[in-house]
Amino acid sequence: MALISPSRRLRRTPFSDGVEAAGVKAYTVYNRMLLPTVFRSVEEDYRHLKDAVQIWDVAVERQVELRGPDAGRLMQMLTPRDLRKMQPGQCFYVPIVDETGGMLNDPVAVKLAEDRWWISIADSDLLFWVKGIAYGYRLDVLVDEPDVSPLAVQGPKADELMARVFGDAVRDVRFFRFGWFEFQGRPLVVARSGYSKQGGFEIYVEGSDLGMPLWNALMEAGKDLDVHAGCPNLIERIEGGLLSYGNDMTDDNTPHECGLGRFCNTNTAIGCVGRDALLRVAQEGPVRQIRPVEIHGAPVPPCDRLWPVMDGDQHVGNISSSAFSPDFNTNVSIGMIRMTHWTAATEVDVVTPDGVRAATVYEAFWQ
Amino acid sequence: MALISPSRRLRRTPFSDGVEAAGVKAYTVYNRMLLPTVFRSVEEDYRHLKDAVQIWDVAVERQVELRGPDAGRLMQMLTPRDLRKMQPGQCFYVPIVDETGGMLNDPVAVKLAEDRWWISIADSDLLFWVKGIAYGYRLDVLVDEPDVSPLAVQGPKADELMARVFGDAVRDVRFFRFGWFEFQGRPLVVARSGYSKQGGFEIYVEGSDLGMPLWNALMEAGKDLDVHAGCPNLIERIEGGLLSYGNDMTDDNTPHECGLGRFCNTNTAIGCVGRDALLRVAQEGPVRQIRPVEIHGAPVPPCDRLWPVMDGDQHVGNISSSAFSPDFNTNVSIGMIRMTHWTAATEVDVVTPDGVRAATVYEAFWQ
Repeated sequence: MALISPSRRLRRTPFSDGVEAAGVKAYTVYNRMLLPTVFRSVEEDYRHLKDAVQIWDVAVERQVELRGPDAGRLMQMLTPRDLRKMQPGQCFYVPIVDETGGMLNDPVAVKLAEDRWWISIADSDLLFWVKGIAYGYRLDVLVDEPDVSPLAVQGPKADELMARVFGDAVRDVRFFRFGWFEFQGRPLVVARSGYSKQGGFEIYVEGSDLGMPLWNALMEAGKDLDVHAGCPNLIERIEGGLLSYGNDMTDDNTPHECGLGRFCNTNTAIGCVGRDALLRVAQEGPVRQIRPVEIHGAPVPPCDRLWPVMDGDQHVGNISSSAFSPDFNTNVSIGMIRMTHWTAATEVDVVTPDGVRAATVYEAFWQ
Repeated sequence: MALISPSRRLRRTPFSDGVEAAGVKAYTVYNRMLLPTVFRSVEEDYRHLKDAVQIWDVAVERQVELRGPDAGRLMQMLTPRDLRKMQPGQCFYVPIVDETGGMLNDPVAVKLAEDRWWISIADSDLLFWVKGIAYGYRLDVLVDEPDVSPLAVQGPKADELMARVFGDAVRDVRFFRFGWFEFQGRPLVVARSGYSKQGGFEIYVEGSDLGMPLWNALMEAGKDLDVHAGCPNLIERIEGGLLSYGNDMTDDNTPHECGLGRFCNTNTAIGCVGRDALLRVAQEGPVRQIRPVEIHGAPVPPCDRLWPVMDGDQHVGNISSSAFSPDFNTNVSIGMIRMTHWTAATEVDVVTPDGVRAATVYEAFWQ
């Protein structure tokens, strides 16, 4: 692994001081901001995430704020998910598509009020697309990146830790709902969500000055819970089938190819700019789709480019993420697989940097 | 410095194999792609760039292609620079602004034909903004990221090396012009441009498969010229006053604040979406502007966040880039300085991580 050169362009977060003090070992860059990837080791972090509770600096989930009379109309233009029944207090996972139906991002939309939304984005400058659409359609809406930085609390002891800092009422927040909770006299959005399958919360920290005080309060309150700084864990997120935009899907892919058809209501999502392009694939289904793939044998090296999935001479897909799972004792992987080979238990070959490996395609992720 | 975690999301380039073979030591991430930052050391790379010739993997300068009957109209919508007199064969440095006059990117526009342009971008997903505008205005234009990856040849011996690979005619390409030159039977755009003040070319490599053959041909042809893999050099680019989007300017800044007023013809750039917002500042000038700043004393640490520029208790600006220059034997820096303190030879203080340092504001960069 090479070093990363520091510069202002790779933005620090309101929690960076805490991340450094906790001994971060490696980063990735996500939305032009530093995202920790390793504290103790990927394997140690994985075990600890499943056993205890972690604080994650996920400020890289930048917010695109929509505010004004046309905010709701604009939000529906962005996604094939029908938002008519969405209430303030709800979070929706929303595929965002362009006019060709290609995925531009896969964020969580947070409905604060009828005329105010946050879009908590994955790794692409969605702000630019939304601003362009709003300007082109002359919508009455403010589109901006506010000073809001999510801090995640993830792991089986997340409820206990959160209750100690925000009070017992936080335990009542339902999955993909949020409530307003005070910290140092300031109300913060706290949602039950996060990029792991271990349960937990995301705190939308409004105001960078609150970053380190909140980080420190959580660390202090969780000492006897073995709280530790953590980060989205490569192994755990592959096991759970949590996709990563830019890794497992790009603007080449429709939501249906990404297995996100259940989040699309293309017929009734009137106004979605990608609706025309998606109607046909929504009905007939895609010809390739995301699948869990087990790569047999010894641990594979880091997956930094697509690994071809082969059936003899036939190129039937690509692996985009892969890691050795201690709990399942195999290489858990995510791939985009052609229809001809996506049935569960299909045997294929994967061309890794370490040579060709036997692999099996599945339908359900490891949980 | 921390490590960088590999993943497909941090895209490799057509030249990555060459970069790795040349012993790259560190990267930054730019347009979600790997950009080398150090080969031997920043200082050694700097000396060599000024003395010999380097091959730079600048594939991160992704292209936004505009093609179709409305391509020219769309291009003018993006920038306050008047493009009416621009001819095919020319490259223009064009500030790109949003409807508020804020900088979204500072690319080089390459006019291939009346109805075909490449925008060779700095670090932001300009594609999303351009697609949004094109869609909102229902323009007849294709907007896409083609398989084009720039490779730069920079340094005093660049002409000699390029002539050996592309023929002597390449010597006649004028500054910010381009010509078509063949490599392995395929025509490539070759422009006299690049992100250094040492002279040289940028080859727009169309087709990833040509990447390593061209890299190898240049390395082979330049052996006796001491050719080496290189990259944009922090010290040299600060000395020369080459700005970096995301470091020295963001969407908070107008082109005028960035000292790019000479590239703006706001009155006559009819169609530019930021024209209304910029007319006043174009006439009256900004209240803060980019300036070279010398920070006295020992070499400063890496500048990974804004360093406040102070006059007593008064916050009069911020440093965004800084490095110790061997040739000028001081810390060359770039800062955004308020009007009250931007006159040449103004003495100020800079709050660095190593403590408060005496500094001097200048008008001209080090050349």
